[in-house]
Amino acid sequence: MTEHEGPTLADATRGRILYGGDYNPEQWPEEVWHEDVRLMREAGVNSVTLGVFSWSRIEPRPGERDFGWLDRLMDLMHENGIGVVLATPTASPPPWMGHLHPDTLPRDEDGRTEWWGGRQHFSHSSATYRRLAAAVTEDLAARYGGHPALTMWHINNEYCTYDWGDEAAARFRDWLRARYGTLDALNTAWGTAFWSQGYGDWAEVLPPRRAHYLKNPTQVLDFKRFTSDMLLECYTAERDIVRRHTPHLPVTTNFMPLWAGQDAWRWAEEEDVVSVDLYPDPRDPLGAQDGALVQDMTRSQARGPWMLMEQAAGPVNWRGVNHPKPRGLNRLWSLQAVARGADAVCYFQWRQSRQGAEKFHSGMVGHAGERGRAYQEVRQLGADLARIAPHVTGGRIAADVAVLHDWHSWWAGDQEARPSREVDYPQVLRAWHRALWQAHLTTDFAHPAHDLSAYRMVVVPQLYLLTDAAVDNLLAYVRGGGTLVCGFLTGVADQDDRVRPGGMDARLRALFGIRTLHEWWPLEAGETAECEGFRGTLWSEELEPDGTADETTPYKGGELDGLPAVLRKGRAWYVSTLPEPEALRELLARAAGEAGVRPVLDGLPDRVEAVRRGELLFLLNHGREPVTVEVPGAHHDLLAEEAVTDRLTLGRYGVAVLRS
Amino acid sequence: MTEHEGPTLADATRGRILYGGDYNPEQWPEEVWHEDVRLMREAGVNSVTLGVFSWSRIEPRPGERDFGWLDRLMDLMHENGIGVVLATPTASPPPWMGHLHPDTLPRDEDGRTEWWGGRQHFSHSSATYRRLAAAVTEDLAARYGGHPALTMWHINNEYCTYDWGDEAAARFRDWLRARYGTLDALNTAWGTAFWSQGYGDWAEVLPPRRAHYLKNPTQVLDFKRFTSDMLLECYTAERDIVRRHTPHLPVTTNFMPLWAGQDAWRWAEEEDVVSVDLYPDPRDPLGAQDGALVQDMTRSQARGPWMLMEQAAGPVNWRGVNHPKPRGLNRLWSLQAVARGADAVCYFQWRQSRQGAEKFHSGMVGHAGERGRAYQEVRQLGADLARIAPHVTGGRIAADVAVLHDWHSWWAGDQEARPSREVDYPQVLRAWHRALWQAHLTTDFAHPAHDLSAYRMVVVPQLYLLTDAAVDNLLAYVRGGGTLVCGFLTGVADQDDRVRPGGMDARLRALFGIRTLHEWWPLEAGETAECEGFRGTLWSEELEPDGTADETTPYKGGELDGLPAVLRKGRAWYVSTLPEPEALRELLARAAGEAGVRPVLDGLPDRVEAVRRGELLFLLNHGREPVTVEVPGAHHDLLAEEAVTDRLTLGRYGVAVLRS
Amino acid sequence: MTEHEGPTLADATRGRILYGGDYNPEQWPEEVWHEDVRLMREAGVNSVTLGVFSWSRIEPRPGERDFGWLDRLMDLMHENGIGVVLATPTASPPPWMGHLHPDTLPRDEDGRTEWWGGRQHFSHSSATYRRLAAAVTEDLAARYGGHPALTMWHINNEYCTYDWGDEAAARFRDWLRARYGTLDALNTAWGTAFWSQGYGDWAEVLPPRRAHYLKNPTQVLDFKRFTSDMLLECYTAERDIVRRHTPHLPVTTNFMPLWAGQDAWRWAEEEDVVSVDLYPDPRDPLGAQDGALVQDMTRSQARGPWMLMEQAAGPVNWRGVNHPKPRGLNRLWSLQAVARGADAVCYFQWRQSRQGAEKFHSGMVGHAGERGRAYQEVRQLGADLARIAPHVTGGRIAADVAVLHDWHSWWAGDQEARPSREVDYPQVLRAWHRALWQAHLTTDFAHPAHDLSAYRMVVVPQLYLLTDAAVDNLLAYVRGGGTLVCGFLTGVADQDDRVRPGGMDARLRALFGIRTLHEWWPLEAGETAECEGFRGTLWSEELEPDGTADETTPYKGGELDGLPAVLRKGRAWYVSTLPEPEALRELLARAAGEAGVRPVLDGLPDRVEAVRRGELLFLLNHGREPVTVEVPGAHHDLLAEEAVTDRLTLGRYGVAVLRS
Repeated sequence: MTEHEGPTLADATRGRILYGGDYNPEQWPEEVWHEDVRLMREAGVNSVTLGVFSWSRIEPRPGERDFGWLDRLMDLMHENGIGVVLATPTASPPPWMGHLHPDTLPRDEDGRTEWWGGRQHFSHSSATYRRLAAAVTEDLAARYGGHPALTMWHINNEYCTYDWGDEAAARFRDWLRARYGTLDALNTAWGTAFWSQGYGDWAEVLPPRRAHYLKNPTQVLDFKRFTSDMLLECYTAERDIVRRHTPHLPVTTNFMPLWAGQDAWRWAEEEDVVSVDLYPDPRDPLGAQDGALVQDMTRSQARGPWMLMEQAAGPVNWRGVNHPKPRGLNRLWSLQAVARGADAVCYFQWRQSRQGAEKFHSGMVGHAGERGRAYQEVRQLGADLARIAPHVTGGRIAADVAVLHDWHSWWAGDQEARPSREVDYPQVLRAWHRALWQAHLTTDFAHPAHDLSAYRMVVVPQLYLLTDAAVDNLLAYVRGGGTLVCGFLTGVADQDDRVRPGGMDARLRALFGIRTLHEWWPLEAGETAECEGFRGTLWSEELEPDGTADETTPYKGGELDGLPAVLRKGRAWYVSTLPEPEALRELLARAAGEAGVRPVLDGLPDRVEAVRRGELLFLLNHGREPVTVEVPGAHHDLLAEEAVTDRLTLGRYGVAVLRS
Repeated sequence: MTEHEGPTLADATRGRILYGGDYNPEQWPEEVWHEDVRLMREAGVNSVTLGVFSWSRIEPRPGERDFGWLDRLMDLMHENGIGVVLATPTASPPPWMGHLHPDTLPRDEDGRTEWWGGRQHFSHSSATYRRLAAAVTEDLAARYGGHPALTMWHINNEYCTYDWGDEAAARFRDWLRARYGTLDALNTAWGTAFWSQGYGDWAEVLPPRRAHYLKNPTQVLDFKRFTSDMLLECYTAERDIVRRHTPHLPVTTNFMPLWAGQDAWRWAEEEDVVSVDLYPDPRDPLGAQDGALVQDMTRSQARGPWMLMEQAAGPVNWRGVNHPKPRGLNRLWSLQAVARGADAVCYFQWRQSRQGAEKFHSGMVGHAGERGRAYQEVRQLGADLARIAPHVTGGRIAADVAVLHDWHSWWAGDQEARPSREVDYPQVLRAWHRALWQAHLTTDFAHPAHDLSAYRMVVVPQLYLLTDAAVDNLLAYVRGGGTLVCGFLTGVADQDDRVRPGGMDARLRALFGIRTLHEWWPLEAGETAECEGFRGTLWSEELEPDGTADETTPYKGGELDGLPAVLRKGRAWYVSTLPEPEALRELLARAAGEAGVRPVLDGLPDRVEAVRRGELLFLLNHGREPVTVEVPGAHHDLLAEEAVTDRLTLGRYGVAVLRS
Repeated sequence: MTEHEGPTLADATRGRILYGGDYNPEQWPEEVWHEDVRLMREAGVNSVTLGVFSWSRIEPRPGERDFGWLDRLMDLMHENGIGVVLATPTASPPPWMGHLHPDTLPRDEDGRTEWWGGRQHFSHSSATYRRLAAAVTEDLAARYGGHPALTMWHINNEYCTYDWGDEAAARFRDWLRARYGTLDALNTAWGTAFWSQGYGDWAEVLPPRRAHYLKNPTQVLDFKRFTSDMLLECYTAERDIVRRHTPHLPVTTNFMPLWAGQDAWRWAEEEDVVSVDLYPDPRDPLGAQDGALVQDMTRSQARGPWMLMEQAAGPVNWRGVNHPKPRGLNRLWSLQAVARGADAVCYFQWRQSRQGAEKFHSGMVGHAGERGRAYQEVRQLGADLARIAPHVTGGRIAADVAVLHDWHSWWAGDQEARPSREVDYPQVLRAWHRALWQAHLTTDFAHPAHDLSAYRMVVVPQLYLLTDAAVDNLLAYVRGGGTLVCGFLTGVADQDDRVRPGGMDARLRALFGIRTLHEWWPLEAGETAECEGFRGTLWSEELEPDGTADETTPYKGGELDGLPAVLRKGRAWYVSTLPEPEALRELLARAAGEAGVRPVLDGLPDRVEAVRRGELLFLLNHGREPVTVEVPGAHHDLLAEEAVTDRLTLGRYGVAVLRS
């Protein structure tokens, strides 16, 4: 990954924090537009995203164009000093497309068509879809590329579709041919000698459709790789069109947080701005950590400031029970995003819909309108952001710790017929990040092939699949003085999901002082494994050490009594279970301490989060009770606009942004 | 809704309570028929329903007719004084129909065919099906219209099918064209501006088939409306045929209790007799209330006496665990139906099948035959019914309270992506009816557009969708002196499922003294919200009152501390949570008391139900222990045939029918 | 069932216990083959199964043949004294077959295709599949029939597929025509008078595809019979081919344990060797009983020694959480199989795969290789088996008790719309077998039409469907002096799933002293029914005795208070509930005692299993703590190679094989 060239988020922010959201004025009569602008200005909104789902409005019948309404809106925004992030409308084709071109509709693995009537009913592999999407993108870019309101391009929306149909099958074969060159190489990589799956002709190769029994896991893995790549092709095709018209303006597409379908490391390389949609559950006691994880991940993909493209001012509508945000939480979580590197704080959507599938998803202006609590809090937040913007935009965050994450490993590990269905990769990742977060250790994410030398400690919650290069990288990192803490089920498989001899990479075993991995002993839900000093969950292992470890913590009792649960050999740690939260936090705090990594601030109360961004110190109280924080020295709180000396009290959901 | 003209149930009962059930003699050799008649006579059976599933017997091959067996049965019944409700056999087409005419088979939303081999495998939209159904109905009516055994027509059986296939799609477009006139109007009603769903050609419009993500909710709502209407067309087409032959005989079709698929208010207008199938779970401690609810609903649809078309003498076969009826329960629940307005007490089915999919559904004559407990109790009940019939048939029930219910509101509210999946409309309706039932308040059901002026109190458990006319109606009702008690999630949407400004109709808010509805706070399963004096379940709300309410009961603690949970402004109450059962009962008893509504009898023990029908007082003990009831004055118990003064004792599941 | 003629397992064992497993060398480079042979020899492996999934290797393109690799392997095995069980590769057709012949792919009941990419994607009814399978079988048999390494044929693998497609429909009609002769007979058997299902033309008859509501149960039953028969035709077609080439060699196909899809009684008649795959859960506290049940069942089908075709040296990969075998458990359960009649102890698979869908299923040589615990234990077991083989092979097991089991009854009973979904036939069967196993009573299984006269006691856990002949057989058995203990839901239906008059066969009712079966009272999950001296689960019944029983145990309390829960009339017992485990064990121990049946050994501790095979006494400690067993007299322990007098101590998972 090379440093990014071309326009960046800074070209859109120009010293401000972008504040606003998706704006879908085609749902409203024009008189409401003017009311909207008034409310936006009062709330400090300086950016709206237009056009995300406007295809059928722009092209109501095939080949027609209706831009008048959009012309008026672009002008209106410009007149009011509100920048426009303009979206290509290709996430939701108009009904006429599926009707005239059934080949644009995806099929699921059971062969069922996904019809129009919702959204995202397009096949990434459909040549027709791609042609029509390019045409509307071209016209949009040609018309608005020079409009003074335009600040950024937004391509499509939350790419997330699969297709097992015939055109996708043809594209899958092309993709495989490009990857493997020959059928022999494919047969080798997929291990088709097992279960008589040897392919004798490319035409026989299919997406992993419904089967009688277990599917070929490498076929499934490659289909996930292929899907991510096909969607990326859709993205880059549209990006290249708009870039041709406006080489000076940044382009983005919005990720869903930690979503399984896209290799976001790879995608981020193709974006000028990395943006994400973030919806922690307001009722989740660890919602703030959930947010921090996604923010750290997005910042790491962006390698700098990033954009919070969507969040909710209140409840969403897609959970079983959709809870609103208690007073203050919207502000708290928005400022948390800024603390962790966001230079844009946006929402889906500006005005809550009265019709359609998302009318119970909250808006910055809710059904209760201007008087509603949601808008009142939005207005307050706008003022807060304006207050801190001059000091924060463009600011960087230094992290001494990196957590490794890789989609390919996730894709390979998250399949049927594995040792334990209880092992859920995102949950494992969350558990490790949570331990670091609760230890107040600022953390980046990194890809296992990235240069890790800048980090004092690297944490691998679980990388089931590690390429040879990634193993090289880890070994070099430790040789170079780095501290590596590694969780179970790591280094099991190679790039083709082929189990490495010994069940775990031999060089990794040597690194940790393991001679033989005899058996995995996965634990049932709720079951624990007693270890010296703590309890493990989810997993345990029957390991035979080779006698070279400097320190081992044994299992106690049961079949594994006396065998090592944790090994440390020099700066390399192996943790063969998932310690309970407090134990994992202690373990990582100790390893970090030995690696010379310090928490952001000493003596922080549990529920207070602290982040340093640039010259600022953010302090966020995630509790509902006031709390006092020791901050030695003299500071200025940019939000309260008052001096702080040595300590301050944060109220319920309170935030301070200190400049020293 | 105008008063019914034409024949009524009284034309079939002629002073008796119809007693009997579905009779499927084609399953049995003719010698059994004669045994059946003997047992029927001994049990006081005076009515059987023939032909419900006889199509393949009547028309074994396309166009053939075999009526001989039915001729003999009609004669046999007539000779034995047993009336015949003759059914059109169109609920289960013969195998040849699907085989020769695959267009008659329905498709589900995933495109899967529903094959023959069960029942109800017909598309309501199939022209072929309708043609063939009309033909067999015509021949049946022509042949038996003049038969002296014939007392009533029964069309089809439990209409309940959906179809997402191509012919249904064409009919759906016709239906939408009739509803909306123009595509513009449809686009407006469906809010297709959201997610780029604007239709440019009628041919693009489809039933809401499988989609990638959330479907358009108004499309889904209209599809439910369409389905109910298509089924109703099937019904009226057959009804019109038989009516042409026998204008003097009543026509019915049997509803399933509180079934989601039919707008039974609308259907009831097309029936001469309203009939229902009723199967409370014998193990449900609230089974009797479940029955009372359906009986009250059916009576309200019938606007007078109604027909219990199906119940079970013992267990059914479609629950997970199918419990038999303990001794006495069949009699108790049958007499409850009479108490609540039934002039016909019938069963599915007379003789329990030995083969087929329902052979473990009990019969009036079970597998154990004449000696079995089921038949013994059936015989006793026959005698009981004969004893009370002269005094009860045609009798009316006066109710001062009405519960509002509307299918369209249910259809709109019961969709994906709503605030809370825990809110289940039928459960909410049951909870409110239960409170009234346990308060011994006799209750009708009514449609929100009905004339409500005859009621002292109207209760709205939940009407998420209210048309403007319905809001007018409620306001006029309160203005006219009525007491209105209204539950949460009422008046949220208009007839197109468009959220009303403010999230709740403004006039209703004013009625209750609410200024702003800030947020809904749905509760998790099992979670409660503390209120002053009681606990709420399922839901709570962040309401800002406008200061005009006469009385408010606040939430206590949590985010809603001090905000109103219940508001009363004059005679209008708003209840923003679902109070626990005892609290809701007290609340409704108080509101009723203030509205001048009295319980049927004072001082009734909890488990005794009391209903006045005509000049009679029914007392039903739903407990297994004897209980003493105070009934001041002198009465005659028609069942025990003895005098009662001031008090009586009801044994386990005991019933008394008092005449004063 | 006549005595088996032709080759038997003894022709393959030749005095040894076959020891080895599935060997899939096509997954490995040839240098690994030589390493494999070395490890096999060290472990005492004397048999491998080749070719199970080799079709695409043997026939990489249609009509081609590649046998060179197999030639080399056959020779290699022979040179090293390892016998080969050669498999026809027909369980997993190569991709080219589905691609060129889509008619070979099965369709599920929803019409969805089962594509290649897994295994077993063949339609049993496809003429094309059968033709191509026969061709490859013919060539394989021709080439290796005379090879000296060849000891046995293994046809296909775990036959287990269904097909609802059009070619299967045509075959189903043929099968039905053969069964019923006329449509009238089919209509009568299926009870098509119910729900208008009368067939007027054979072409109308289909497999029981997706329906709107409940399917015809006899159609479903016949479809299961048909499926078992079609799969059997596939088996016998291949068997006949190999038998033509090698009439002296035995032929087998491997059953899955107690699998619903095959009538294994019928299949076993077509096999020279009965073999089974056995995978109890190592974490199941009753795993050993689960194993014993399958072993008893397989032995009874084999009527002598049988083959354990597959087991796992460690974890499998298809459970939710896949636990390894604790140290010693693999040996214990392997020796248990020998104790219960196995003369072959084999595994899936020799060397654990590194790729493919089963790479996390353990092997005799695991990923940890030679040093891994799995292989170390496999080597020890090889030595143990060699030590006892001369004394045990061919040995018979005498049982005085038979448990009746029938697939057709299971198929009829395991359908929708039954009295209780909680009644799970295999669980009921397991509960009764467990009671006998824990009472140390050696038990055979038998079909209800078998000659039972050799048994002192016959136990019927549940035979919902009993043919007239089976009823005759049971009555004759009791008349002949046998003791019959019969569980609930027995004798309910005849061969067509037609309920017998009275709900239970009249002659059985008379046998037990039952006049009337009024109602079944199924119990909810976790609910119990109090009886005199014990508690029942799952089921209870409202029975009216006829006064002829010698002894009754009543229900206590509730609706059934005082009615009989258990009746004994002479030597016939009826148990109308499922007694809790200890109570069922006591009841069966008492009945057995009265019938003159003795446990294998008196005073055995609970967790010790004892079996006599031939002249040997096997003692197996299923506990993790050492235990002392009294064995009066002088013996020699073949495993420990030491003398035992009067008592011995078995360590954790310890086994002794005593010769007196």
